[in-house]
Amino acid sequence: MTDFAAWMQACQSHMESVLAACLPPAHIAPQRLHEAMRYAVLGGGKRVRPLLAFAAGEVAGADPARVQHAAAAVELLHAYSLVHDDMPAMDDDALRRGKPTVHVEFDEATALLVGDALQSLAFEVLAAQPLADDPAVQLRMVHLLAQAAGSRGMAGGQAIDLASVGKPLDLAELEYMHIHKTGALIRASVLLGAHCGTADDDTLGALDHYAKCIGLAFQVVDDVLDAEASTATLGKTAGKDAANNKPTYVSLLGAARARELAQELRADAHAALDRLDDSAGRLRQLADFVVERVF
Amino acid sequence: MTDFAAWMQACQSHMESVLAACLPPAHIAPQRLHEAMRYAVLGGGKRVRPLLAFAAGEVAGADPARVQHAAAAVELLHAYSLVHDDMPAMDDDALRRGKPTVHVEFDEATALLVGDALQSLAFEVLAAQPLADDPAVQLRMVHLLAQAAGSRGMAGGQAIDLASVGKPLDLAELEYMHIHKTGALIRASVLLGAHCGTADDDTLGALDHYAKCIGLAFQVVDDVLDAEASTATLGKTAGKDAANNKPTYVSLLGAARARELAQELRADAHAALDRLDDSAGRLRQLADFVVERVF
Repeated sequence: MTDFAAWMQACQSHMESVLAACLPPAHIAPQRLHEAMRYAVLGGGKRVRPLLAFAAGEVAGADPARVQHAAAAVELLHAYSLVHDDMPAMDDDALRRGKPTVHVEFDEATALLVGDALQSLAFEVLAAQPLADDPAVQLRMVHLLAQAAGSRGMAGGQAIDLASVGKPLDLAELEYMHIHKTGALIRASVLLGAHCGTADDDTLGALDHYAKCIGLAFQVVDDVLDAEASTATLGKTAGKDAANNKPTYVSLLGAARARELAQELRADAHAALDRLDDSAGRLRQLADFVVERVF
Repeated sequence: MTDFAAWMQACQSHMESVLAACLPPAHIAPQRLHEAMRYAVLGGGKRVRPLLAFAAGEVAGADPARVQHAAAAVELLHAYSLVHDDMPAMDDDALRRGKPTVHVEFDEATALLVGDALQSLAFEVLAAQPLADDPAVQLRMVHLLAQAAGSRGMAGGQAIDLASVGKPLDLAELEYMHIHKTGALIRASVLLGAHCGTADDDTLGALDHYAKCIGLAFQVVDDVLDAEASTATLGKTAGKDAANNKPTYVSLLGAARARELAQELRADAHAALDRLDDSAGRLRQLADFVVERVF
């Protein structure tokens, strides 16, 4: 197994080309929309979701040439959600990945359409070519991704998040919100990667549990970073949660306990993979990577 | 063949139940989002796209129990596009189907999420159960609908529309815009209905040509209605195109020539169906229905 950092960098760099090829060229009409879609997706982001898809694909013996399309579909959905979340009607944020957000760099109408068109493109990419031996499995992948994106997944989590501003949430409610807002797409990344190969129900169950732990750990770590890191380090506006009076793991638990929780979730994620062999090595490393960002 | 008006009403009423069953119940969390999604979709609309899907399904001998899900997917996409188009960053409209628009009745953030979640739901519905004998055909349906919705389809047409406000478009540019903005989804309705059954390439080609004519006719008629009908009759704000200095078939051709063009497109639509048998009867009637709204 090559060094984790090298693997991660190779995946990230490869995903940049895959995404660039999925996105319509900026010289094709409507040019401004296509330019803005490329601006929103390319040249930034840790590509955590694609990394998870590739790592889960290794467990299922999936061809990376297939996984890359599933990974691109998830990343396009993630990118759309960032564009819409940053809009004035939502979080009203001006900075993302160290650059002006889409509605600032372009305009609000374009940002709205960029998000809309990126969501369509995600499903286009997921259905464009065979990603599983059985097309019925690929249809299940479409169904899974659509559910993860929708009102009982990511969009629903965002709705709960908006409704929670200024309201006291308890830990269970905060977890419920994050399981939808970020957890659903993290879970889809892992399961879609696995569906590109072959995995029995026990393995899928283990991956699902792993994904749930990682999704929450990711959010706990994000909350710690938002509270403690600088805007320059994050590439997005820091301290926003506190400024918006949004409940976070740090505001509910304090930073020290939040860090402990992230460690516990990492341990749970590793435990979920116990019954899997060395093919789960990348998933184990990713669990460490997600949590070690704050240590 | 039963009377057209009775068939249409039966389809519309049936689609209301199908859509109501596709949409998450309003008592399921997040309640406000689900309530707003149902508000946006139910209780209004001519359901032209589902009617086209059912009519095309008849040509292909498709089981209506399958077509209804394809029809619902297209209608959900259409409903999402209306919600986003009405938002302040886009057309900024307060009235739709005789009711306050979603961002007026709820709020902008909710309207944004309603549109996002309805798009996801469209793909969820399209992939939830077998709609074609061959799952590979159903994957093609997903691909087709995603393309129709995206930056080279509906969302792209909307971008061209926004860019055209206050600019002189010629007839070819106006047609190009509408082929994307409304034509793409009309075409998808017809082709998805046919894919639920069996149609050879010649038949699909004929249906595709029919759909292109109908899509344009629909827009020409809409422009005439916008220019001539009252807000009360339309259930949406009338005279908006002129007020926004938007190019329309009426502003480019005058109302009399626009009506003639609608008649020509109806004749073209009928001609496209010439080689088909009586199974295309509903499609023929729909061509008449679309155009006769202004006569």
